[in-house]
Amino acid sequence: MSLTEFPSRLLENAVNEFTNLPGIGRKTALRLVMSLLRRNSEDVRKFGESIIKLHEEIHYCKVCNNISDTEICSICNDERRDRSVICVVENIQDVMAIENTCQYRGLYHVLGGIISPIDGIGPSDLKIDNLEEKIKSGGVREIILALSTTMEGDTTNFYLYKRLTKYNPLITTLARGVAVGDELEYTDEITLGRALNNRNPYHQC
Amino acid sequence: MSLTEFPSRLLENAVNEFTNLPGIGRKTALRLVMSLLRRNSEDVRKFGESIIKLHEEIHYCKVCNNISDTEICSICNDERRDRSVICVVENIQDVMAIENTCQYRGLYHVLGGIISPIDGIGPSDLKIDNLEEKIKSGGVREIILALSTTMEGDTTNFYLYKRLTKYNPLITTLARGVAVGDELEYTDEITLGRALNNRNPYHQC
Repeated sequence: MSLTEFPSRLLENAVNEFTNLPGIGRKTALRLVMSLLRRNSEDVRKFGESIIKLHEEIHYCKVCNNISDTEICSICNDERRDRSVICVVENIQDVMAIENTCQYRGLYHVLGGIISPIDGIGPSDLKIDNLEEKIKSGGVREIILALSTTMEGDTTNFYLYKRLTKYNPLITTLARGVAVGDELEYTDEITLGRALNNRNPYHQC
Repeated sequence: MSLTEFPSRLLENAVNEFTNLPGIGRKTALRLVMSLLRRNSEDVRKFGESIIKLHEEIHYCKVCNNISDTEICSICNDERRDRSVICVVENIQDVMAIENTCQYRGLYHVLGGIISPIDGIGPSDLKIDNLEEKIKSGGVREIILALSTTMEGDTTNFYLYKRLTKYNPLITTLARGVAVGDELEYTDEITLGRALNNRNPYHQC
């Protein structure tokens, strides 16, 4: 079914707005809009306003570029966190993923993307300058590059390493190896090769 | 990754609103909200307002319950359409699907659902009374039952037939058979059985 003609302009507008979102086609958009129409006015108003409010009132942390309700985010504001370690990530979802592990007590730095020449994203489009400032001003012992294990992630890692190594911090990356729960048989050869090369002494945990 | 802790209440609210939509989980909701955050204020305001406006200003056609910008929808208002045939459908998407075939020139009647005891939807929850009124008042020659070929669709067909047959209209349903492009080998036996029983004289088209 191709959705060429809508019985209502208002409906068409709302569907078009939804199709501008990533991964939402016209059929899904229509289904979402119809589900909103079945709700009461109060709910729909809340939905619409939560989005407008989010965009107008959200802050980005001045220190780490993380999303925040205040000028400095709750992580950068937390006195108990280790200020000598900075974990560099691509976006806010990655901060949330690492926070959910409960394994990290340092600070973050959100780049807002990764270097990707195909998408026209170069180093100047990322928040690298204020990362460099932070490291230059001292007090940072370790930088953890926690970017995706893709070509673009590797490129960005290399660029950051080149640019930051002159300040002599310890620069580390996440361990790469066989994912927990994966069967060796189905692990790709590059991952398996790296896991072999980076093997660790066995200890029970 | 489980998304338990959000760095911002505003973000959390917006994500929660999106997860209330059908088929949208927390990860997808976060991705959609982040994509909205990357847009400019103007766009986001338009998005939010199009939804609020849709809900507040939309009409449902008084004659056929189709969605409309006016009191009577453009189909019911169209003088060129055959007023003696009414096609009964479950929802507005179905009207659009049939309109897209360009094969139908009669009117519609949108039930707003189908009888489904499991979901607690009975005949009284559907717009059947004004369909009966229309048929009672005469001028309707044929009623096409164009509901889904599911158990619920069949139940609704049966209920409508029982209720409307006393007014002596011609009651028809959509042809059921092998879908265009399907291979016989992969067609289920019930569909194939019906297609055999309802076979048509061959003619080139």
